Amino acid sequence: MHNYKLTIQYDGGRYKGWQRLGNTNNTIQGKIEYVLSELMGEEIEIIGSSRTDAGVHALGQIANFKTNKNLSTTKIQEYLNHYLPQDISIIRVDKVSENFHARYHARAKTYLYRIWNREYSHPFMRKYSMHIEEKLDLEAMKKAAGYFVGTHDFTAFSNAKSKKKSMVREIYSFWINQEDGFVDIRIRGNGFLYNMARWIAGTLIDVGLGDLDGESIPTIIQSKKRDRTGRLAEPQGLYLENIEYEEFE
Amino acid sequence: MHNYKLTIQYDGGRYKGWQRLGNTNNTIQGKIEYVLSELMGEEIEIIGSSRTDAGVHALGQIANFKTNKNLSTTKIQEYLNHYLPQDISIIRVDKVSENFHARYHARAKTYLYRIWNREYSHPFMRKYSMHIEEKLDLEAMKKAAGYFVGTHDFTAFSNAKSKKKSMVREIYSFWINQEDGFVDIRIRGNGFLYNMARWIAGTLIDVGLGDLDGESIPTIIQSKKRDRTGRLAEPQGLYLENIEYEEFE
Repeated sequence: MHNYKLTIQYDGGRYKGWQRLGNTNNTIQGKIEYVLSELMGEEIEIIGSSRTDAGVHALGQIANFKTNKNLSTTKIQEYLNHYLPQDISIIRVDKVSENFHARYHARAKTYLYRIWNREYSHPFMRKYSMHIEEKLDLEAMKKAAGYFVGTHDFTAFSNAKSKKKSMVREIYSFWINQEDGFVDIRIRGNGFLYNMARWIAGTLIDVGLGDLDGESIPTIIQSKKRDRTGRLAEPQGLYLENIEYEEFE
Repeated sequence: MHNYKLTIQYDGGRYKGWQRLGNTNNTIQGKIEYVLSELMGEEIEIIGSSRTDAGVHALGQIANFKTNKNLSTTKIQEYLNHYLPQDISIIRVDKVSENFHARYHARAKTYLYRIWNREYSHPFMRKYSMHIEEKLDLEAMKKAAGYFVGTHDFTAFSNAKSKKKSMVREIYSFWINQEDGFVDIRIRGNGFLYNMARWIAGTLIDVGLGDLDGESIPTIIQSKKRDRTGRLAEPQGLYLENIEYEEFE
């Protein structure tokens, strides 16, 4: 079996997210699998590192798939980019060890949340950022972000429904930068629950607006109650930025 | 009379261009005039520096309007940004001398043409650039651009219909830069005919692809024939970047 790794960018605006759901074709996974299956002449299933939500973008989503066919990476990349819609782009194809699994072997993931923080809207970034008109208090946000770092049960910051799977994740680091009217929040961790990045970004926004006291974050985490956090940040501001692998790169 | 100057950004993607045409509301000028007239309680007509085509964007369009009402620039900006759609933004309002006229007093205009020059599409910039897959020859384009500089009759590079108005314009300078997969062409001149920036950009693209010899540009200009140039570059790559005024700033 040959194992191929894809590096993918997409504008999630018109999709129901990454994960293929039954017969619906309106997902990123579904679109890519359809074109790959045409190319290979067999049904191809791809494994994505992260199941991004509806409307969420990716700068560096990683996926892999296995096939008996031995095609050049150039051929695969050209065929995919030719037949995929323009809002999905395969920026790299690599042949990898047969053991490589895009989800199981991911060691760290970084999400980027972009906020446009001026009074007027940004005509070109309105679909790629969240617009907050009131000036955000960056120092308060940076201080609050520190409370998320570490290993915690993130039940309070997720809409995940399963009660069986572990809700414990580790956040390695945060960066909050301000440049040219944007406030960019980067979160690096070993994994993210359903909606977790957006609940964390929204809570930091509420802290930046003075609507929530950053000092209360440890208590909110400990409560494991979904209704204690700040707002859910809008999907169009969120990007899966990159995935790190230790052993297979 | 009070005279106000507006600095405007817009995503031209869903509009029929700047200029209001009869009753159609689907123009940038029409949208702004509608909101301004509501605010002022009288019919307001705005004068734009440039009549950008359908689908063309602006980073720094300038317009002015006169009124008997004396409102603060902050009030005007807030009201406009509140009621205008998100793809039109008023980034500045200034009170200016009663003589100021956004079109007559413009001394130089700069247009930016953005080309995404990689094999795969750019998911986030597909509506804000033209995608050329084949690698462009930048040196050939830079050399060819030099032939446009100076004062010429640009009949061959325009779809303007009037035979009465002068087709002579002066191009002051060109910049062609390559960065992170983009090729950006900037053209600064004293004025641009209908479609002129797009015909020039398209001709340079054809030179960059090796489909047209840059040396033939002086002959094409002299021919005054519309059918001698290269392609018409797509509207979504073009931005009115800024307007310079000498006496009123």
